[in-house]
Amino acid sequence: MRAEILTVGDEILIGDVVNGNAAWLGRELTAAGVAVGRSAVVGDTLEAISGALAAALAAADVVIVTGGLGSTSDDLTRDALAALAGVPLVRDEALAGLIRDRLERAGMRPRPMPLRMADVPEGATMLPNPAGTAPGLRMELPGGTVYALPGVPGEMKAIMAASVLPELADGDAAPAVLTLRTAGVWETVLAARLAPLEERKDVSLAFLPEPSEVAVRITADSRPALDEAVLQARELLGAVMYGTGEQSLASVVHELLAAREHTVAVAESLTGGLLGAELTYVPGSSETFAGGVTAYETRLKHELLGVSASLLEERGAVDPEVAVQMAEGARERLGAVYGLGVTGVAGPGSQDGKSVGTVHIGISGPRGSRSFTPVLPLPPDLTQARANIRRMTVVQALDLLRHEILGVAMIRRWEEDQEDREGLT
Amino acid sequence: MRAEILTVGDEILIGDVVNGNAAWLGRELTAAGVAVGRSAVVGDTLEAISGALAAALAAADVVIVTGGLGSTSDDLTRDALAALAGVPLVRDEALAGLIRDRLERAGMRPRPMPLRMADVPEGATMLPNPAGTAPGLRMELPGGTVYALPGVPGEMKAIMAASVLPELADGDAAPAVLTLRTAGVWETVLAARLAPLEERKDVSLAFLPEPSEVAVRITADSRPALDEAVLQARELLGAVMYGTGEQSLASVVHELLAAREHTVAVAESLTGGLLGAELTYVPGSSETFAGGVTAYETRLKHELLGVSASLLEERGAVDPEVAVQMAEGARERLGAVYGLGVTGVAGPGSQDGKSVGTVHIGISGPRGSRSFTPVLPLPPDLTQARANIRRMTVVQALDLLRHEILGVAMIRRWEEDQEDREGLT
Repeated sequence: MRAEILTVGDEILIGDVVNGNAAWLGRELTAAGVAVGRSAVVGDTLEAISGALAAALAAADVVIVTGGLGSTSDDLTRDALAALAGVPLVRDEALAGLIRDRLERAGMRPRPMPLRMADVPEGATMLPNPAGTAPGLRMELPGGTVYALPGVPGEMKAIMAASVLPELADGDAAPAVLTLRTAGVWETVLAARLAPLEERKDVSLAFLPEPSEVAVRITADSRPALDEAVLQARELLGAVMYGTGEQSLASVVHELLAAREHTVAVAESLTGGLLGAELTYVPGSSETFAGGVTAYETRLKHELLGVSASLLEERGAVDPEVAVQMAEGARERLGAVYGLGVTGVAGPGSQDGKSVGTVHIGISGPRGSRSFTPVLPLPPDLTQARANIRRMTVVQALDLLRHEILGVAMIRRWEEDQEDREGLT
Repeated sequence: MRAEILTVGDEILIGDVVNGNAAWLGRELTAAGVAVGRSAVVGDTLEAISGALAAALAAADVVIVTGGLGSTSDDLTRDALAALAGVPLVRDEALAGLIRDRLERAGMRPRPMPLRMADVPEGATMLPNPAGTAPGLRMELPGGTVYALPGVPGEMKAIMAASVLPELADGDAAPAVLTLRTAGVWETVLAARLAPLEERKDVSLAFLPEPSEVAVRITADSRPALDEAVLQARELLGAVMYGTGEQSLASVVHELLAAREHTVAVAESLTGGLLGAELTYVPGSSETFAGGVTAYETRLKHELLGVSASLLEERGAVDPEVAVQMAEGARERLGAVYGLGVTGVAGPGSQDGKSVGTVHIGISGPRGSRSFTPVLPLPPDLTQARANIRRMTVVQALDLLRHEILGVAMIRRWEEDQEDREGLT
């Protein structure tokens, strides 16, 4: 089965909003075994929507259109569908009643406008909206089936999951796919490591780099081929691979700590709280995250974390030993099993004579204390690197904790990258 | 002038990568006075690319295509352009030499593959790439002009800025645009407040809601009309409007504090460090951000921030007075002019008998201490609300600090929303 995605909305076309809906639909349809042939974005005009729908139906069996189902005058997807089908819009009284009820409960007297949502093309099937008011619509048109969904991501996803994907999913056509999650090693290095997999005819790899992480999507002809490829990848990647699918580095660290009934406390500087925020993004993190201290002003590293004042005096705040003492201070003062400390220079300016991108991570735990100094790739324009350096620092710190819990030594990345790059040529 | 955007790449089509390039191009072209008529995404096949290019040229004067200019076998945009123009690909020896040099400097022996980048359609003009190797291409085809750019965002943007936008920009057609930034008031309330502006024929408004924030984009026929509209909007919105353009709530708070040589310290719970992270996202924040304490475990609210143990015992951690004592603890123990404290329930589960979405913010400063309890809109499925609740809490806390610095009372949002909603009906 072949599908096309149509996104309706001026705000997407002119770039006020990034088209996350189309990306989500592309992923879900592909995973369901539906081939996505093309994706288009049009503005809020009847001509544009009808024209794009007709073009999509000429090329595909199924068209998923999102947006233009709201209650304002520029919501025209219903009108475009009716025009294309040559049918009138008819008021669905049950839906109109529902809308009236909701408006009244919200303390608003019903006005004509919101009731436009109840005017649906004759012959369209309504798909219940678990997350909002406007229902989805399914229409059989010459050329194929159109599913029209609200543009609000939560509502679109809810209707897709409840009504559309179950109708479209084709188990036999669904590719065997798994995403491997890796941290701390460059894409080029992973590609070299996974060369034996690349040679296989029954699998294909896609590399999706993010700051200090790379996701590797394995697509295989069959489930057995995928399982075999994943096994092979695990051997080739070793500890560099931290998880699969929807796992995040923070969620993996949380699981590792929870399994041991251990906790972690953090001491932050350049990240300003981002490390703790990442750890607590995971539901249930109160089980494994004690808390943190962000000692942004240098004096606070001494006052709140007990970092040696003379050390700070002599070497400044950006120093491996400072990172270690921050980790130890967090561990002791917050009463956690592990302490993580991060200090460094996010920019735009250098600090204490250390250049932008200099980062030291300290860790303290049952096995003692040590520091790790990652080599971060930096863009030519360092003033643009601040957010990236902070994010990479968080990832490197979480990965250091993961290695520490597992009792695996952190690889000395730079040297290894050098070798692997030479190995590539 | 009418343009269409064409994005080439399987990874975009199947949703591995969100189409940020198209959003950026939509914004830049619109700002340059070029109307974006449609945007399309196709996969890495010759047929799909040629077909989409032909369709785009039939409807637009200019087509901007990104992606498919790399060195691998699935980079086919050059081939599609040549096929469409009916011309051969010719090796550009100067470019080939440049590629060889770069490969050698990177320590790699030149292999045939990368040199594909030097095979350009006969008659195409090469647009220098300040950020990478593959140049952009401009081709005049029957129907219009095609600009082909690399898919790497940094390279695409660099070539657009250096070569394409200067050629396309139409000052007379460029709309006068300004984005107003507001916090803490719902879209419906803003729409009601700005009704007088909506009635003007020479301006149009677009509302772009985010958690606890709404950006309002004003597009006007002329610069004077825009200035007038912005002035009017300022009067209608008052303190609800915190800034314009690229300003963020955190950057505005930073500027307000810096102008007074004041600092802030934060005490966090449910946000886990996100509030400090947001404040320190702003370059130069070390001037105004002292640091923070994330007391995630309840006991730490007493041990690290001096919140009354009996208060925690009696009322639990989610309480207005706890938020105030957290703010006071942060202010005193970190030695800052202002202290902010946030406590609440992000979910998925309730805590201390308080339901998901309950949030209390405390503030302490030269004017004394108080608490604020925002009413946060929640989705039907509370287990999905965690990230949103944390983000809304950060925005509400920053907005409370902004009001406190300005000496403006925080509006009691819920009541006001009610009134405004009734005002709407």
